[in-house]
Amino acid sequence: MSKQGSPPLTIQRLEPKVKRGLTVVITGHGKGKTTSALGMALRAAGHGMRVCIIQFMKGDLYAGEWDGVKMLGKLVELHTTGKGFCGILGNPYPWNEHRANAQDAMELAREKITSGKFEIVILDEINNAVKLKLVDQPQVMELLDLKPELLHLVLTGRDALPEVIERADTVSEIVEVKHAYRKDIEPQPGIDY
Amino acid sequence: MSKQGSPPLTIQRLEPKVKRGLTVVITGHGKGKTTSALGMALRAAGHGMRVCIIQFMKGDLYAGEWDGVKMLGKLVELHTTGKGFCGILGNPYPWNEHRANAQDAMELAREKITSGKFEIVILDEINNAVKLKLVDQPQVMELLDLKPELLHLVLTGRDALPEVIERADTVSEIVEVKHAYRKDIEPQPGIDY
Repeated sequence: MSKQGSPPLTIQRLEPKVKRGLTVVITGHGKGKTTSALGMALRAAGHGMRVCIIQFMKGDLYAGEWDGVKMLGKLVELHTTGKGFCGILGNPYPWNEHRANAQDAMELAREKITSGKFEIVILDEINNAVKLKLVDQPQVMELLDLKPELLHLVLTGRDALPEVIERADTVSEIVEVKHAYRKDIEPQPGIDY
Repeated sequence: MSKQGSPPLTIQRLEPKVKRGLTVVITGHGKGKTTSALGMALRAAGHGMRVCIIQFMKGDLYAGEWDGVKMLGKLVELHTTGKGFCGILGNPYPWNEHRANAQDAMELAREKITSGKFEIVILDEINNAVKLKLVDQPQVMELLDLKPELLHLVLTGRDALPEVIERADTVSEIVEVKHAYRKDIEPQPGIDY
């Protein structure tokens, strides 16, 4: 048994013979999409890889990852964009403002993907932004075309387009079997945000 | 748009009126279970919460989270137990050795869950350990009974028992839509381990 600080006596290391840059899609309506993307960032930072996370439609609502990612130091860059979920009850911003924010985020994504500065770029909630027409399908396909061969590109959010799934190497659909909020349990820090 | 280090001018913070300790199950055959658990640890650390992760059946194969978790400092404790996946091709250890390792991990889980030292305990791959009979169903139910009211308990791994799903508050099933290994792409660091 190994504990943090005391790894097993013999450590085996996988090393792929062929390095590949994967396109990964995490979609579906269940809990765990953004969380899974954050886990990839943590794991990648452990490998010393540089990660850029761009979150769409997140706004000014504090989430644990803001400070969590800072603990990973310079390896991981987090950009929180947008003004919260477009179209949900209580969101006061007009659609064209959400669209303008998402378009700015796409410009940033284009810049980061082609910068050569990262091994992984995560576009969190981009699928949802497409579904809500804040981003157009051809724009996403353009990003996939721009992706350097060895860059991993991760796209999260419910309702991923079939065309994006078609282009991806690994696709997971997270199905909601149960969610605490259906029992009127409020979102809890550390688990839900 | 906010960048790491320059948060939005006004930050809103959710704060549940009623704090609850949730039981969360992440199951299914798709990619993202351990990754999602690691994302919860990152997010929780951002909130200043203390997390204990116990990984079942992991063995001595290096994964990025070993070093990633260290970056989260004293808030997150990671225990890697076992000797790799029981029953897969090439694993040289007999079943009773896997069982003994998993039983040690259960003892550790019991200790950590009742220690009062953590806000979140993550039992990574425990569902799979139950499926492979390295851990017995009543032992898992006993852990659920032991869980302090405000502790979040996260159980990951494919083939979660219906009885465990029944007891959980939030359950996600990660369905494999596609996986790169089916195209003979080797596991890639940062994404797969």
